[in-house]
Amino acid sequence: MIALIHQPFCPHSRFVRLALGEYGLEVELVEERPWERRREFLALTPEGLLPVLMEDDNPPVPGADGAAEYIDETHGPHRGERRLMPLAVADRIEARRLAHWFNHKFFAEVSQPLVEEKIFKRMLTASQGGGAPNMEAVRAARVNIRYHLQYIGRLVGARNWLAGDRLTYADLAAAAHLSCVDYLGDAAWGENEDARLWYARIKSRPSFRALLSETVPGLRPSATYAELDF
Amino acid sequence: MIALIHQPFCPHSRFVRLALGEYGLEVELVEERPWERRREFLALTPEGLLPVLMEDDNPPVPGADGAAEYIDETHGPHRGERRLMPLAVADRIEARRLAHWFNHKFFAEVSQPLVEEKIFKRMLTASQGGGAPNMEAVRAARVNIRYHLQYIGRLVGARNWLAGDRLTYADLAAAAHLSCVDYLGDAAWGENEDARLWYARIKSRPSFRALLSETVPGLRPSATYAELDF
Repeated sequence: MIALIHQPFCPHSRFVRLALGEYGLEVELVEERPWERRREFLALTPEGLLPVLMEDDNPPVPGADGAAEYIDETHGPHRGERRLMPLAVADRIEARRLAHWFNHKFFAEVSQPLVEEKIFKRMLTASQGGGAPNMEAVRAARVNIRYHLQYIGRLVGARNWLAGDRLTYADLAAAAHLSCVDYLGDAAWGENEDARLWYARIKSRPSFRALLSETVPGLRPSATYAELDF
Repeated sequence: MIALIHQPFCPHSRFVRLALGEYGLEVELVEERPWERRREFLALTPEGLLPVLMEDDNPPVPGADGAAEYIDETHGPHRGERRLMPLAVADRIEARRLAHWFNHKFFAEVSQPLVEEKIFKRMLTASQGGGAPNMEAVRAARVNIRYHLQYIGRLVGARNWLAGDRLTYADLAAAAHLSCVDYLGDAAWGENEDARLWYARIKSRPSFRALLSETVPGLRPSATYAELDF
């Protein structure tokens, strides 16, 4: 049995949930509010990273990067065509490069500012840094997302999936971050049609279903968030 | 033959050089100034990450995280006791967790501000953001390093190396970042004796030699930088 300490609109948590979902692995979700910096939470993940994956007697696995490698090593072999980390060296380089792009660069430039300003700040007390969103950060992220959508469009225009012929961690990372942004209505789908079609494809997968049913109290999702045909 | 596009005082470049050195792999070093954002460089690493590892006909491998996994997969097997990524699942989790700690958290809180403010800003033109160091950022990093040294001391006080009985990527990551900080005289070795003894051990390894001979033009290393018995 796998347990995952997560936060519903943390893009890294969503990335790991998608990976577990693609492999059909059952997972017990435990919600954590990392900004509360609970002692028990920091004992599991001293760096404060979400999510934290726990399975059997293994030590807790903190963070998206480590969880992806762990899941590949423990649940990836023998998945054949469904393995999320490809087997060929060149394909692994590309899958890791793009997963890193979304889990770090897209996060810093787009999903982190949008989620923090528009979702997490609603949940925080004033002393924790809560309050009205910093609209300058929001506007910058809305500009940044455009070139990321163009990049996705360029990649999937030449390939079937982001890192090549098959679905990999790269697609799950990109889609996890985009799903949070899409909830907020900030995914500028008009920017690139190839990117929109790719997202419609990945959003229709069963692994996505649980994510699309979650909502932020008091904040309605964008009209198209849960629409598979948007 | 391996080529590595690097920057001498980029801690992530140093981390990958140490890993290649530990495996006795010959490497051709190519210096890059990432802040110039040369088109040819960004074609190899669109995210702009250093270092970039190139070997044979494989695609370029950008960044410390990806390079560590690549080197482990292509040059790690059959290294036995000298493998930098341990074999047991629990040990891999711990080695990755700590390599991440230093390559991301220590970098953000200590080595990035110190190296940027005190070294890179000397090399940048005014329009690139060069100039006098932001002493507020320097002071914050000097405070932050203390709890990281305590953390290292606590870990090696209970184990032989950072992640367990053997040398792993965790030690190389920590030592790579600390080596840059030590050059600047900002490694507060008085803070923790176990951390100092661990660093003296790792600094004496042959893989470290090339790093210790490098200097920043116009900026002398701290008195103890190249001393093995400091």
